[in-house]
Amino acid sequence: MATITKKELIDQISEKTKTKRIIVKRIVQAFLDDVIEELGQDNRLEFRDFGVFETKSRAARIAQNPKTLQRVQVPPKRTVKFKSGRLMKLRLREQDDKAIQNTGTDGSQQ
Amino acid sequence: MATITKKELIDQISEKTKTKRIIVKRIVQAFLDDVIEELGQDNRLEFRDFGVFETKSRAARIAQNPKTLQRVQVPPKRTVKFKSGRLMKLRLREQDDKAIQNTGTDGSQQ
Repeated sequence: MATITKKELIDQISEKTKTKRIIVKRIVQAFLDDVIEELGQDNRLEFRDFGVFETKSRAARIAQNPKTLQRVQVPPKRTVKFKSGRLMKLRLREQDDKAIQNTGTDGSQQ
Repeated sequence: MATITKKELIDQISEKTKTKRIIVKRIVQAFLDDVIEELGQDNRLEFRDFGVFETKSRAARIAQNPKTLQRVQVPPKRTVKFKSGRLMKLRLREQDDKAIQNTGTDGSQQ
């Protein structure tokens, strides 16, 4: 298991698409920036096959300290959720199936 | 709250970066495809400021049907987890702070 950085991915894409590195970098950065902006505006992003990004909110609420009985305001908070799409799930399942075939952990005959 | 598609995002990026739509499309698609490929190989993707994609595994296990006492093999399964990064969290917090200022839900004086 390796960690791939933005820089490494940009190099890969530049080679694969035969596009200058500087152009790939600009577009990938614009893509990531735009996703952040849209999520900041509470928009949902749906990339077919890849997956969906959306924000989830926890409403503001009043909590009480059980010892002091003091009530405190807990501010609202939003987080980002990602749900993987069709192709991403398929790729992971393919890998899982290979693992099953290699180890025979599903008990079926190959 | 709107849903933004890949197509809409490509149009935005094309305009913003003054790059031909066809080139933006090719690079964005290569980016999404590469993320899927890397996750399929169990690699972790770390995009500074944006966030981290990684796979999580649930090991194969044996489950038992409590009624019939029959044991069944549950195959391993992998899912994709996304953790938002520094800038993404900051943008969401800014929006939350604005919401607090507008509604005064934190009880402090602005």
